[in-house]
Amino acid sequence: MKIVSGGICAAKGFKANGIHCGIRKNRTKRDLALIYSEKRANTAAVYTTNLVKGAPLTVTKQNISDGYASAVICNSGNANTCNADGVEVASKTCELLADKLNISPKDVVVASTGVIGQPLDITPIANGIPELVAGLENDKSQQAAEGIMTTDTKLKEIAVSFEIGGKTCKIGGIAKGSGMIHPNMATMLVFITTDCAISSDMLQKALSADIKNTFNMVSVDGDTSTNDMVVVMANGMAENEEIIADGADFEIFMKALNTVTVDLCRKIAGDGEGATKLLECTVSGAKTEDIGKTVAKSVICSALTKAAMFGADANWGRVLCAIGYSGADVDVNKIDVSFKSAKGEIAVCKNGAGIDFSEEKAKEILLENEIEIKVSLNDGEFSSAAWGCDLTYDYVKINGDYRT
Amino acid sequence: MKIVSGGICAAKGFKANGIHCGIRKNRTKRDLALIYSEKRANTAAVYTTNLVKGAPLTVTKQNISDGYASAVICNSGNANTCNADGVEVASKTCELLADKLNISPKDVVVASTGVIGQPLDITPIANGIPELVAGLENDKSQQAAEGIMTTDTKLKEIAVSFEIGGKTCKIGGIAKGSGMIHPNMATMLVFITTDCAISSDMLQKALSADIKNTFNMVSVDGDTSTNDMVVVMANGMAENEEIIADGADFEIFMKALNTVTVDLCRKIAGDGEGATKLLECTVSGAKTEDIGKTVAKSVICSALTKAAMFGADANWGRVLCAIGYSGADVDVNKIDVSFKSAKGEIAVCKNGAGIDFSEEKAKEILLENEIEIKVSLNDGEFSSAAWGCDLTYDYVKINGDYRT
Repeated sequence: MKIVSGGICAAKGFKANGIHCGIRKNRTKRDLALIYSEKRANTAAVYTTNLVKGAPLTVTKQNISDGYASAVICNSGNANTCNADGVEVASKTCELLADKLNISPKDVVVASTGVIGQPLDITPIANGIPELVAGLENDKSQQAAEGIMTTDTKLKEIAVSFEIGGKTCKIGGIAKGSGMIHPNMATMLVFITTDCAISSDMLQKALSADIKNTFNMVSVDGDTSTNDMVVVMANGMAENEEIIADGADFEIFMKALNTVTVDLCRKIAGDGEGATKLLECTVSGAKTEDIGKTVAKSVICSALTKAAMFGADANWGRVLCAIGYSGADVDVNKIDVSFKSAKGEIAVCKNGAGIDFSEEKAKEILLENEIEIKVSLNDGEFSSAAWGCDLTYDYVKINGDYRT
Repeated sequence: MKIVSGGICAAKGFKANGIHCGIRKNRTKRDLALIYSEKRANTAAVYTTNLVKGAPLTVTKQNISDGYASAVICNSGNANTCNADGVEVASKTCELLADKLNISPKDVVVASTGVIGQPLDITPIANGIPELVAGLENDKSQQAAEGIMTTDTKLKEIAVSFEIGGKTCKIGGIAKGSGMIHPNMATMLVFITTDCAISSDMLQKALSADIKNTFNMVSVDGDTSTNDMVVVMANGMAENEEIIADGADFEIFMKALNTVTVDLCRKIAGDGEGATKLLECTVSGAKTEDIGKTVAKSVICSALTKAAMFGADANWGRVLCAIGYSGADVDVNKIDVSFKSAKGEIAVCKNGAGIDFSEEKAKEILLENEIEIKVSLNDGEFSSAAWGCDLTYDYVKINGDYRT
């Protein structure tokens, strides 16, 4: 498997585009994105578990209940959530796009991200769709990725190439992250494309299994969004024998998918609102997989740990505290903690108690912008990882006045 | 019932003191507090559910397992948690104090708050105890309240007077709040004294029932501390007939206790680390008590809602979002939300959707320093409240470098 360029256009038969249609006031920001597969694609998705759900999720869920889609349209700047006419606007968007692409409106995935509770005017979308469709190209993954960004400061895309049965397949993805990121048995806005031939059922199986260790292990601020959605489209144009059951081919596909999703998780966490650092908490020696996950996620979510990391302060007591209140069944007297970055690794806690360490060396390690918080529970064989970011002044600034 | 002065010294037979003994570097900050009851008091307590527990909790729990205590000693500046010799230092503290007060070490409640994982030197405590005991007075509640403060900016004390069987009783309390505040079936550091005669069992029953609606409904940052503890001492010196069962007297006592605890909750939340505003989320119309509590707590804990309140931004979509992911069984299409303060009340969401409102008026309301977020679930008869604070630059500043 190798990393390749092209993002969501890396796989055969996928085109994309992103434009500014006028939903966002800033004319330099794209606010409407489109992904299109020449061949109707087997499609799988997972959605937020928030009871307050964006209208686009309702429409998308119904549209792809048959396991197929040909296009994804997504706007930023408005979540189309908690609006009386939300479903109507989302459905109309599908119809307008389908008409222009000459496909069925039932083959459209529609998504929105932005402010909750402000009516979404269909006008700029209706006006923008002709330009959006006319500009579809097989090298515009970047434009689409920009079109779904909100407070994201960095573009999030990735693609990998791998072989199945002698055929070269590719998977690519783009993501929107930044704030309201705490997927809970669901995930944030991610669109993934592949030319690998795989049945809708197996695609759903792969996606549902994968997100438990990837997107569900990311948190920026503990707030589970109303509009989370991951969609994977597989158009089969790589011409491998279609994957319809477990086996070696499915394993290869799962591994490729995981490479794409882990990369996007790291990009989402590292570009969390206001973040200066990507935090990765790796937990080893857990008695069960659940315990490892619970511990990793609790550490990543701790406001105090996040603020300490921002200050490059080796305040490991906060890590222990977060493990202690996580609800996981751990023996606190067996826990070891160390901090690691490109500058090295330093042990700070052994058997649940502090040990002497060089504050100077710890500072040097923690001043880096990718930090690993290594927790050894010394209580079993399972390992887990979770991704988050530091808590900074800018997080408060961005969210103190997000709407204006 | 009426509010009276005197704090923890309001009730008969209680004396207190607070000094600087040298645990904290800043010589102007008191770091050792003492509460003493002339008469051995029936005592009840609740503790953090964090698996990582401060050593003082282990010692206190054992000491008051018989339901009695005569004194509370508490230091700030060091949590005495995750230290190999923690229990030894806490036990030694009890012995040194008991010797000076001429009581049993088993009648001492010991508590600590501050940094986790730094050894606590017994020397300043040993040197300070003679001065601490010599200075005991019945008008030094304030000194004791200061002695338990960490990053708190305001002193937290309250006392009420009430009558039981023709006898005047008093209850007073002090609290330490500020950071690592998210009690979970437990609570933060609070000491309450009363001269009301009440058995240890009934005292424990009253306390355990009360905290479910008071301290457990407070969150500053979602981090459940390792050193949470609430202790109530009742020395019976009001000479009312001892409360030994449910009934009218117990109801009066519960109400008085609740007045003290709600007041301390509001003070803790309003003085959360970096806070500029006290937030109260009141939920009405819940189908069950649990649903009301879950919703109120979820709103109060939402980083995005907290940041919006800091910016006086009526971003009610974040309130809806936090209700939606709370896990509570609610009908999102029935939810109404309004914001209220001394400047008035403004409705912003009706039946789960936005309504037109004056942004100007909303801003005026939200610029106040006590904000009520009113949620009507319109789905039942239960009400709940939770307390928190806004998320500010100063929270990040305080916690980016807490140890140095």
